[in-house]
Amino acid sequence: MPIRLGLVLLSGGLDSTTLATFAVSRDYQLSALTLDYGQTHRRELTAATEIAKTLGIEQIVADVSFYKYLAQHSALTNADTYDLPTGRSQADMADDIPITYVPLRNTFFLTLAAARLESHALREIEQNAISPEDIEATLFIAANAVDYSGYPDCRPEFYENAVETLNRGSKLWTQYGIPFKIDTPLIEMSKADIVRMASELTAPIHLSWSCYRGSETPCGECDSCLLRAKGFAQAGLPDPALP
Amino acid sequence: MPIRLGLVLLSGGLDSTTLATFAVSRDYQLSALTLDYGQTHRRELTAATEIAKTLGIEQIVADVSFYKYLAQHSALTNADTYDLPTGRSQADMADDIPITYVPLRNTFFLTLAAARLESHALREIEQNAISPEDIEATLFIAANAVDYSGYPDCRPEFYENAVETLNRGSKLWTQYGIPFKIDTPLIEMSKADIVRMASELTAPIHLSWSCYRGSETPCGECDSCLLRAKGFAQAGLPDPALP
Repeated sequence: MPIRLGLVLLSGGLDSTTLATFAVSRDYQLSALTLDYGQTHRRELTAATEIAKTLGIEQIVADVSFYKYLAQHSALTNADTYDLPTGRSQADMADDIPITYVPLRNTFFLTLAAARLESHALREIEQNAISPEDIEATLFIAANAVDYSGYPDCRPEFYENAVETLNRGSKLWTQYGIPFKIDTPLIEMSKADIVRMASELTAPIHLSWSCYRGSETPCGECDSCLLRAKGFAQAGLPDPALP
Repeated sequence: MPIRLGLVLLSGGLDSTTLATFAVSRDYQLSALTLDYGQTHRRELTAATEIAKTLGIEQIVADVSFYKYLAQHSALTNADTYDLPTGRSQADMADDIPITYVPLRNTFFLTLAAARLESHALREIEQNAISPEDIEATLFIAANAVDYSGYPDCRPEFYENAVETLNRGSKLWTQYGIPFKIDTPLIEMSKADIVRMASELTAPIHLSWSCYRGSETPCGECDSCLLRAKGFAQAGLPDPALP
Protein backbone atom coordinates (compact mmCIF):
# COMPACT_ATOMS: atom_id res chain seq x y z
CA MET A 1 0.00 0.00 0.00
CA PRO A 2 1.92 3.09 -1.18
CA ILE A 3 2.05 6.20 0.98
CA ARG A 4 1.50 9.22 -1.18
CA LEU A 5 2.77 12.25 0.66
CA GLY A 6 1.66 15.59 -0.74
CA LEU A 7 2.43 19.15 0.23
CA VAL A 8 0.76 22.20 -1.27
CA LEU A 9 2.10 25.72 -1.03
CA LEU A 10 -0.95 27.71 0.01
CA SER A 11 -0.57 31.48 -0.19
CA GLY A 12 -4.25 32.28 0.15
CA GLY A 13 -4.67 33.58 -3.39
CA LEU A 14 -7.09 32.40 -6.04
CA ASP A 15 -4.63 30.07 -7.73
CA SER A 16 -3.29 28.23 -4.69
CA THR A 17 -6.83 27.89 -3.28
CA THR A 18 -7.93 26.23 -6.51
CA LEU A 19 -4.83 24.04 -6.51
CA ALA A 20 -5.26 22.96 -2.89
CA THR A 21 -8.84 21.96 -3.64
CA PHE A 22 -7.59 19.98 -6.64
CA ALA A 23 -4.99 18.21 -4.48
CA VAL A 24 -7.59 17.37 -1.82
CA SER A 25 -9.62 15.60 -4.52
CA ARG A 26 -6.63 13.31 -5.18
CA ASP A 27 -5.49 10.53 -2.90
CA TYR A 28 -2.71 12.13 -0.84
CA GLN A 29 -1.68 12.51 2.77
CA LEU A 30 -1.83 16.24 2.25
CA SER A 31 -0.47 19.21 4.21
CA ALA A 32 -0.45 22.89 3.33
CA LEU A 33 2.50 25.17 3.89
CA THR A 34 1.88 28.91 4.21
CA LEU A 35 4.81 31.26 4.37
CA ASP A 36 4.79 34.60 6.11
CA TYR A 37 7.64 36.40 4.36
CA GLY A 38 6.68 39.86 5.57
CA GLN A 39 4.43 40.53 2.59
CA THR A 40 2.82 43.93 2.86
CA HIS A 41 -0.52 42.31 2.02
CA ARG A 42 -0.98 40.51 5.36
CA ARG A 43 -4.61 39.84 4.52
CA GLU A 44 -3.42 36.96 2.32
CA LEU A 45 -2.20 35.02 5.36
CA THR A 46 -5.47 35.01 7.26
CA ALA A 47 -7.18 33.97 4.03
CA ALA A 48 -4.85 30.95 3.74
CA THR A 49 -5.68 29.80 7.26
CA GLU A 50 -9.43 30.03 6.64
CA ILE A 51 -9.04 28.14 3.38
CA ALA A 52 -7.00 25.30 4.93
CA LYS A 53 -9.62 24.99 7.68
CA THR A 54 -12.44 24.88 5.14
CA LEU A 55 -10.64 22.22 3.11
CA GLY A 56 -9.83 20.21 6.22
CA ILE A 57 -6.10 20.00 5.64
CA GLU A 58 -3.31 20.41 8.15
CA GLN A 59 -1.68 23.79 7.73
CA ILE A 60 1.86 24.69 8.69
CA VAL A 61 2.57 28.41 8.90
CA ALA A 62 6.24 29.34 8.94
CA ASP A 63 7.43 32.79 9.88
CA VAL A 64 10.08 33.53 7.28
CA SER A 65 9.87 37.28 7.75
CA PHE A 66 13.67 37.51 7.84
CA TYR A 67 13.46 36.97 4.08
CA LYS A 68 12.42 40.55 3.45
CA TYR A 69 15.78 41.72 4.81
CA LEU A 70 17.65 39.47 2.42
CA ALA A 71 15.38 40.23 -0.53
CA GLN A 72 14.72 43.92 0.02
CA HIS A 73 14.61 44.94 -3.59
CA SER A 74 10.87 44.45 -4.16
CA ALA A 75 7.64 46.38 -3.74
CA LEU A 76 6.15 43.36 -1.95
CA THR A 77 8.75 43.35 0.81
CA ASN A 78 9.74 47.00 0.93
CA ALA A 79 6.72 49.25 0.49
CA ASP A 80 8.62 52.24 1.91
CA THR A 81 11.01 52.35 -1.00
CA TYR A 82 9.11 50.93 -3.97
CA ASP A 83 5.66 51.78 -5.29
CA LEU A 84 3.27 49.14 -6.56
CA PRO A 85 2.59 49.49 -10.28
CA THR A 86 -1.10 50.16 -10.93
CA GLY A 87 -3.40 50.31 -13.94
CA ARG A 88 -1.06 48.34 -16.21
CA SER A 89 -2.27 46.51 -19.32
CA GLN A 90 -1.61 42.79 -19.58
CA ALA A 91 0.89 43.46 -22.37
CA ASP A 92 2.84 45.73 -20.04
CA MET A 93 2.78 43.09 -17.32
CA ALA A 94 4.13 40.42 -19.63
CA ASP A 95 6.80 42.72 -21.02
CA ASP A 96 9.21 42.90 -18.15
CA ILE A 97 9.75 41.50 -14.70
CA PRO A 98 8.00 43.98 -12.42
CA ILE A 99 9.18 45.50 -9.15
CA THR A 100 6.78 43.11 -7.38
CA TYR A 101 9.29 40.34 -8.20
CA VAL A 102 10.78 39.18 -4.88
CA PRO A 103 14.32 37.88 -5.43
CA LEU A 104 14.20 34.08 -5.73
CA ARG A 105 11.00 33.84 -3.75
CA ASN A 106 9.67 30.77 -5.50
CA THR A 107 13.05 29.01 -5.33
CA PHE A 108 13.01 29.74 -1.61
CA PHE A 109 9.39 28.58 -1.15
CA LEU A 110 9.95 25.46 -3.19
CA THR A 111 13.01 24.55 -1.12
CA LEU A 112 11.12 24.96 2.15
CA ALA A 113 8.23 22.87 0.90
CA ALA A 114 10.61 20.17 -0.29
CA ALA A 115 12.53 20.18 3.01
CA ARG A 116 9.33 19.63 4.94
CA LEU A 117 8.22 16.89 2.58
CA GLU A 118 11.63 15.19 2.65
CA SER A 119 11.71 15.33 6.44
CA HIS A 120 8.29 13.65 6.53
CA ALA A 121 9.31 10.96 4.06
CA LEU A 122 12.61 10.23 5.85
CA ARG A 123 10.74 9.81 9.10
CA GLU A 124 8.44 7.25 7.47
CA ILE A 125 11.46 5.32 6.21
CA GLU A 126 13.92 5.66 9.08
CA GLN A 127 11.60 5.80 12.07
CA ASN A 128 8.50 3.95 10.91
CA ALA A 129 10.30 1.35 8.76
CA ILE A 130 8.23 2.00 5.64
CA SER A 131 9.92 0.67 2.51
CA PRO A 132 11.19 3.47 0.21
CA GLU A 133 9.47 1.71 -2.68
CA ASP A 134 6.14 2.45 -1.05
CA ILE A 135 6.65 6.19 -0.75
CA GLU A 136 5.84 9.01 -3.16
CA ALA A 137 6.58 12.67 -2.48
CA THR A 138 4.70 15.30 -4.46
CA LEU A 139 4.83 19.07 -4.22
CA PHE A 140 1.82 21.01 -5.51
CA ILE A 141 2.74 24.49 -6.70
CA ALA A 142 0.29 27.03 -8.12
CA ALA A 143 2.79 28.46 -10.59
CA ASN A 144 1.30 30.04 -13.64
CA ALA A 145 3.27 31.03 -16.71
CA VAL A 146 0.40 32.61 -18.64
CA ASP A 147 -0.81 35.56 -16.64
CA TYR A 148 2.38 35.91 -14.65
CA SER A 149 4.71 35.28 -17.55
CA GLY A 150 6.81 38.19 -16.32
CA TYR A 151 8.01 36.18 -13.32
CA PRO A 152 10.86 33.83 -14.24
CA ASP A 153 10.19 31.48 -11.34
CA CYS A 154 6.69 30.71 -12.64
CA ARG A 155 7.86 29.13 -15.91
CA PRO A 156 7.96 25.41 -16.72
CA GLU A 157 11.69 25.49 -17.53
CA PHE A 158 12.38 26.72 -14.02
CA TYR A 159 10.55 23.80 -12.39
CA GLU A 160 12.06 21.25 -14.76
CA ASN A 161 15.49 22.23 -13.57
CA ALA A 162 14.58 22.88 -9.94
CA VAL A 163 13.28 19.35 -9.37
CA GLU A 164 16.67 18.04 -10.44
CA THR A 165 18.43 20.33 -7.96
CA LEU A 166 16.12 19.14 -5.19
CA ASN A 167 16.80 15.53 -6.09
CA ARG A 168 20.57 15.91 -6.30
CA GLY A 169 20.69 17.70 -2.94
CA SER A 170 18.45 15.27 -1.08
CA LYS A 171 18.95 12.08 0.88
CA LEU A 172 15.50 11.03 -0.36
CA TRP A 173 16.75 10.66 -3.92
CA THR A 174 20.48 9.99 -3.55
CA GLN A 175 20.10 7.37 -0.85
CA TYR A 176 16.57 6.00 -1.22
CA GLY A 177 15.85 6.57 -4.91
CA ILE A 178 12.63 8.53 -4.29
CA PRO A 179 12.40 11.50 -6.65
CA PHE A 180 10.49 14.63 -5.81
CA LYS A 181 7.54 15.22 -8.09
CA ILE A 182 6.43 18.77 -8.73
CA ASP A 183 2.86 19.04 -9.88
CA THR A 184 1.96 22.40 -11.45
CA PRO A 185 -1.43 21.73 -13.06
CA LEU A 186 -2.23 25.45 -13.47
CA ILE A 187 0.98 26.38 -15.20
CA GLU A 188 -0.42 26.70 -18.74
CA MET A 189 -3.90 27.88 -17.78
CA SER A 190 -5.30 31.36 -18.26
CA LYS A 191 -6.87 33.09 -15.25
CA ALA A 192 -10.29 32.39 -16.80
CA ASP A 193 -9.42 28.67 -16.99
CA ILE A 194 -8.47 28.74 -13.31
CA VAL A 195 -11.73 30.48 -12.39
CA ARG A 196 -13.65 27.78 -14.29
CA MET A 197 -11.67 25.02 -12.58
CA ALA A 198 -12.32 26.59 -9.16
CA SER A 199 -16.01 26.73 -9.97
CA GLU A 200 -16.12 23.06 -11.06
CA LEU A 201 -14.25 21.95 -7.92
CA THR A 202 -16.31 24.31 -5.74
CA ALA A 203 -13.06 25.64 -4.33
CA PRO A 204 -13.54 28.08 -1.42
CA ILE A 205 -12.35 31.03 -3.50
CA HIS A 206 -14.79 33.33 -1.73
CA LEU A 207 -12.17 33.22 1.05
CA SER A 208 -9.19 33.87 -1.23
CA TRP A 209 -7.22 37.11 -1.41
CA SER A 210 -5.30 38.31 -4.46
CA CYS A 211 -4.76 42.05 -3.94
CA TYR A 212 -1.19 43.16 -3.35
CA ARG A 213 -2.47 45.71 -0.86
CA GLY A 214 -3.66 44.76 2.59
CA SER A 215 -6.81 46.86 2.99
CA GLU A 216 -10.24 45.55 3.95
CA THR A 217 -11.35 45.28 0.33
CA PRO A 218 -9.29 44.67 -2.83
CA CYS A 219 -7.87 47.86 -4.39
CA GLY A 220 -8.94 46.91 -7.92
CA GLU A 221 -5.89 48.65 -9.43
CA CYS A 222 -2.79 46.54 -8.80
CA ASP A 223 -1.57 43.92 -11.30
CA SER A 224 -3.02 41.12 -9.21
CA CYS A 225 -6.49 42.68 -8.88
CA LEU A 226 -6.60 43.48 -12.60
CA LEU A 227 -5.68 39.91 -13.59
CA ARG A 228 -8.21 38.42 -11.22
CA ALA A 229 -11.02 40.70 -12.46
CA LYS A 230 -10.20 39.86 -16.07
CA GLY A 231 -10.26 36.13 -15.27
CA PHE A 232 -13.73 36.27 -13.76
CA ALA A 233 -15.00 38.50 -16.59
CA GLN A 234 -13.69 36.13 -19.26
CA ALA A 235 -15.11 33.10 -17.46
CA GLY A 236 -18.44 34.90 -17.24
CA LEU A 237 -18.66 34.38 -13.48
CA PRO A 238 -18.93 36.80 -10.58
CA ASP A 239 -16.06 37.03 -8.08
CA PRO A 240 -17.52 35.67 -4.83
CA ALA A 241 -14.82 37.44 -2.78
CA LEU A 242 -15.97 40.90 -3.82
CA PRO A 243 -18.27 42.74 -1.42
CA MET B 1 35.00 49.48 -13.89
CA PRO B 2 33.20 46.21 -13.07
CA ILE B 3 31.52 45.80 -9.71
CA ARG B 4 32.31 42.35 -8.39
CA LEU B 5 29.78 41.47 -5.75
CA GLY B 6 30.67 38.51 -3.57
CA LEU B 7 28.85 36.75 -0.78
CA VAL B 8 30.33 34.03 1.39
CA LEU B 9 28.32 31.63 3.51
CA LEU B 10 30.15 31.74 6.84
CA SER B 11 29.13 29.07 9.33
CA GLY B 12 32.05 29.56 11.67
CA GLY B 13 33.68 26.22 10.92
CA LEU B 14 37.19 25.53 9.70
CA ASP B 15 36.22 25.30 6.04
CA SER B 16 34.11 28.44 5.73
CA THR B 17 36.69 30.42 7.74
CA THR B 18 39.37 29.36 5.29
CA LEU B 19 37.11 30.14 2.34
CA ALA B 20 36.15 33.58 3.66
CA THR B 21 39.84 34.42 4.07
CA PHE B 22 40.44 33.25 0.50
CA ALA B 23 37.56 35.43 -0.77
CA VAL B 24 38.89 38.48 1.12
CA SER B 25 42.19 38.05 -0.72
CA ARG B 26 40.32 38.44 -4.04
CA ASP B 27 38.93 41.69 -5.35
CA TYR B 28 35.25 41.57 -4.29
CA GLN B 29 32.72 43.76 -2.54
CA LEU B 30 32.30 41.00 -0.02
CA SER B 31 29.67 40.23 2.61
CA ALA B 32 29.27 37.20 4.84
CA LEU B 33 25.94 35.52 5.53
CA THR B 34 25.60 33.45 8.72
CA LEU B 35 22.45 31.42 9.25
CA ASP B 36 21.06 30.53 12.63
CA TYR B 37 18.94 27.48 11.84
CA GLY B 38 18.54 26.35 15.41
CA GLN B 39 21.68 24.20 15.30
CA THR B 40 22.28 22.53 18.62
CA HIS B 41 25.93 23.65 18.43
CA ARG B 42 25.24 27.36 19.05
CA ARG B 43 28.93 27.95 19.68
CA GLU B 44 29.45 27.94 15.90
CA LEU B 45 27.44 31.16 15.56
CA THR B 46 29.50 33.25 17.95
CA ALA B 47 32.60 31.92 16.21
CA ALA B 48 31.29 33.18 12.86
CA THR B 49 30.74 36.68 14.21
CA GLU B 50 34.27 36.85 15.66
CA ILE B 51 35.70 35.60 12.38
CA ALA B 52 33.83 38.16 10.25
CA LYS B 53 35.02 40.92 12.58
CA THR B 54 38.62 39.73 12.39
CA LEU B 55 38.45 39.57 8.58
CA GLY B 56 36.82 43.01 8.43
CA ILE B 57 33.83 41.93 6.35
CA GLU B 58 30.21 42.94 6.79
CA GLN B 59 28.27 40.09 8.35
CA ILE B 60 24.54 39.48 7.98
CA VAL B 61 23.07 37.07 10.53
CA ALA B 62 19.64 35.74 9.66
CA ASP B 63 17.49 33.92 12.17
CA VAL B 64 16.12 31.00 10.20
CA SER B 65 15.34 28.94 13.28
CA PHE B 66 11.89 28.08 11.87
CA TYR B 67 13.81 25.73 9.59
CA LYS B 68 14.28 23.16 12.32
CA TYR B 69 10.50 22.70 12.46
CA LEU B 70 10.33 22.03 8.73
CA ALA B 71 13.44 19.84 8.70
CA GLN B 72 13.03 17.97 11.96
CA HIS B 73 14.47 14.69 10.85
CA SER B 74 18.10 15.38 11.81
CA ALA B 75 20.37 15.08 14.84
CA LEU B 76 21.54 18.66 14.21
CA THR B 77 18.06 20.16 14.56
CA ASN B 78 16.38 17.66 16.87
CA ALA B 79 18.75 16.51 19.59
CA ASP B 80 15.87 15.22 21.69
CA THR B 81 14.99 12.51 19.21
CA TYR B 82 18.23 11.63 17.43
CA ASP B 83 21.67 10.85 18.81
CA LEU B 84 24.86 12.12 17.24
CA PRO B 85 26.98 9.31 15.83
CA THR B 86 30.37 9.16 17.56
CA GLY B 87 33.66 7.34 17.07
CA ARG B 88 32.97 6.46 13.43
CA SER B 89 35.74 5.64 10.98
CA GLN B 90 36.02 7.72 7.82
CA ALA B 91 34.90 4.72 5.76
CA ASP B 92 31.71 4.56 7.84
CA MET B 93 31.16 8.27 7.36
CA ALA B 94 31.47 8.01 3.59
CA ASP B 95 29.26 4.96 3.40
CA ASP B 96 25.86 6.44 4.02
CA ILE B 97 24.22 9.78 4.58
CA PRO B 98 24.28 10.21 8.34
CA ILE B 99 21.52 11.36 10.67
CA THR B 100 23.36 14.71 10.88
CA TYR B 101 22.08 15.38 7.35
CA VAL B 102 19.58 18.27 7.62
CA PRO B 103 16.96 17.99 4.84
CA LEU B 104 17.97 20.26 1.95
CA ARG B 105 19.99 22.52 4.20
CA ASN B 106 22.54 23.51 1.59
CA THR B 107 19.86 24.09 -1.05
CA PHE B 108 18.16 26.34 1.46
CA PHE B 109 21.37 28.17 2.42
CA LEU B 110 22.40 28.60 -1.19
CA THR B 111 19.01 30.07 -2.08
CA LEU B 112 19.17 32.59 0.77
CA ALA B 113 22.69 33.62 -0.18
CA ALA B 114 21.65 34.01 -3.82
CA ALA B 115 18.54 36.03 -2.90
CA ARG B 116 20.64 38.46 -0.90
CA LEU B 117 23.20 38.74 -3.67
CA GLU B 118 20.52 39.20 -6.35
CA SER B 119 18.80 41.87 -4.28
CA HIS B 120 22.11 43.73 -3.98
CA ALA B 121 22.82 43.44 -7.71
CA LEU B 122 19.31 44.55 -8.70
CA ARG B 123 19.65 47.60 -6.51
CA GLU B 124 22.88 48.54 -8.24
CA ILE B 125 21.17 48.24 -11.62
CA GLU B 126 17.71 49.61 -10.92
CA GLN B 127 18.43 52.20 -8.24
CA ASN B 128 22.03 53.19 -8.87
CA ALA B 129 21.90 52.91 -12.69
CA ILE B 130 24.94 50.65 -12.96
CA SER B 131 25.08 48.87 -16.33
CA PRO B 132 24.38 45.12 -16.02
CA GLU B 133 27.49 44.51 -18.12
CA ASP B 134 29.57 45.89 -15.28
CA ILE B 135 28.22 43.57 -12.58
CA GLU B 136 29.38 40.16 -11.46
CA ALA B 137 27.68 38.11 -8.73
CA THR B 138 29.65 35.35 -7.04
CA LEU B 139 28.65 33.04 -4.21
CA PHE B 140 31.44 31.46 -2.18
CA ILE B 141 30.45 28.14 -0.67
CA ALA B 142 32.70 25.96 1.50
CA ALA B 143 31.26 22.70 0.19
CA ASN B 144 33.57 19.73 0.37
CA ALA B 145 32.96 16.44 -1.38
CA VAL B 146 35.99 14.59 -0.02
CA ASP B 147 35.61 14.38 3.74
CA TYR B 148 31.86 14.95 3.66
CA SER B 149 31.17 12.76 0.67
CA GLY B 150 28.19 11.35 2.55
CA TYR B 151 26.27 14.60 2.15
CA PRO B 152 24.64 14.88 -1.28
CA ASP B 153 24.46 18.66 -1.18
CA CYS B 154 28.26 18.92 -0.93
CA ARG B 155 28.94 17.33 -4.31
CA PRO B 156 29.98 19.13 -7.51
CA GLU B 157 27.02 17.71 -9.49
CA PHE B 158 24.67 19.35 -7.03
CA TYR B 159 26.18 22.81 -7.50
CA GLU B 160 26.39 22.42 -11.29
CA ASN B 161 22.66 21.94 -11.42
CA ALA B 162 21.76 24.37 -8.63
CA VAL B 163 23.38 27.34 -10.35
CA GLU B 164 21.13 26.72 -13.35
CA THR B 165 18.04 26.68 -11.11
CA LEU B 166 19.14 29.96 -9.53
CA ASN B 167 19.66 31.50 -12.94
CA ARG B 168 16.35 30.33 -14.38
CA GLY B 169 14.45 31.59 -11.35
CA SER B 170 16.11 35.00 -11.17
CA LYS B 171 15.50 38.41 -12.70
CA LEU B 172 19.26 38.89 -12.64
CA TRP B 173 19.79 36.27 -15.32
CA THR B 174 16.48 36.18 -17.22
CA GLN B 175 16.20 39.96 -17.56
CA TYR B 176 19.75 41.30 -17.24
CA GLY B 177 21.83 38.38 -18.46
CA ILE B 178 23.99 38.23 -15.33
CA PRO B 179 24.60 34.61 -14.29
CA PHE B 180 25.27 33.60 -10.73
CA LYS B 181 28.73 32.16 -10.24
CA ILE B 182 29.25 29.61 -7.50
CA ASP B 183 32.84 29.33 -6.37
CA THR B 184 33.60 26.19 -4.36
CA PRO B 185 37.42 26.14 -4.26
CA LEU B 186 37.54 23.59 -1.40
CA ILE B 187 35.26 21.04 -3.02
CA GLU B 188 37.96 18.56 -4.05
CA MET B 189 40.35 19.21 -1.18
CA SER B 190 41.07 16.89 1.73
CA LYS B 191 40.81 18.28 5.26
CA ALA B 192 44.63 18.31 5.39
CA ASP B 193 44.70 20.41 2.19
CA ILE B 194 42.27 22.86 3.78
CA VAL B 195 44.39 23.09 6.93
CA ARG B 196 47.45 23.84 4.77
CA MET B 197 45.52 26.47 2.80
CA ALA B 198 44.31 28.08 6.03
CA SER B 199 47.88 28.17 7.29
CA GLU B 200 49.19 29.78 4.09
CA LEU B 201 46.42 32.42 4.11
CA THR B 202 46.82 32.92 7.89
CA ALA B 203 43.08 32.40 8.20
CA PRO B 204 41.76 33.06 11.74
CA ILE B 205 41.00 29.38 12.30
CA HIS B 206 41.92 29.69 15.96
CA LEU B 207 38.44 31.25 16.23
CA SER B 208 36.66 28.54 14.23
CA TRP B 209 34.33 25.91 15.67
CA SER B 210 33.70 22.48 14.12
CA CYS B 211 32.26 20.33 16.91
CA TYR B 212 28.61 19.29 16.50
CA ARG B 213 28.18 19.72 20.25
CA GLY B 214 27.92 23.13 21.86
CA SER B 215 30.10 22.70 24.97
CA GLU B 216 32.97 24.98 25.99
CA THR B 217 35.55 22.74 24.34
CA PRO B 218 35.22 20.37 21.34
CA CYS B 219 34.00 16.86 22.26
CA GLY B 220 36.66 15.10 20.16
CA GLU B 221 34.27 12.24 19.31
CA CYS B 222 31.70 13.44 16.78
CA ASP B 223 32.22 13.05 13.02
CA SER B 224 33.18 16.69 12.69
CA CYS B 225 35.77 16.65 15.50
CA LEU B 226 37.30 13.44 14.16
CA LEU B 227 37.65 14.81 10.64
CA ARG B 228 39.16 18.05 11.88
CA ALA B 229 41.69 16.26 14.08
CA LYS B 230 42.70 13.98 11.22
CA GLY B 231 43.17 16.99 8.92
CA PHE B 232 45.54 18.73 11.32
CA ALA B 233 47.41 15.49 12.01
CA GLN B 234 47.92 14.78 8.30
CA ALA B 235 49.00 18.36 7.62
CA GLY B 236 51.48 18.06 10.53
CA LEU B 237 50.13 21.19 12.18
CA PRO B 238 48.63 21.80 15.63
CA ASP B 239 44.99 22.89 15.88
CA PRO B 240 45.15 26.46 17.22
CA ALA B 241 41.54 26.24 18.43
CA LEU B 242 42.29 23.49 20.93
CA PRO B 243 42.90 24.56 24.53
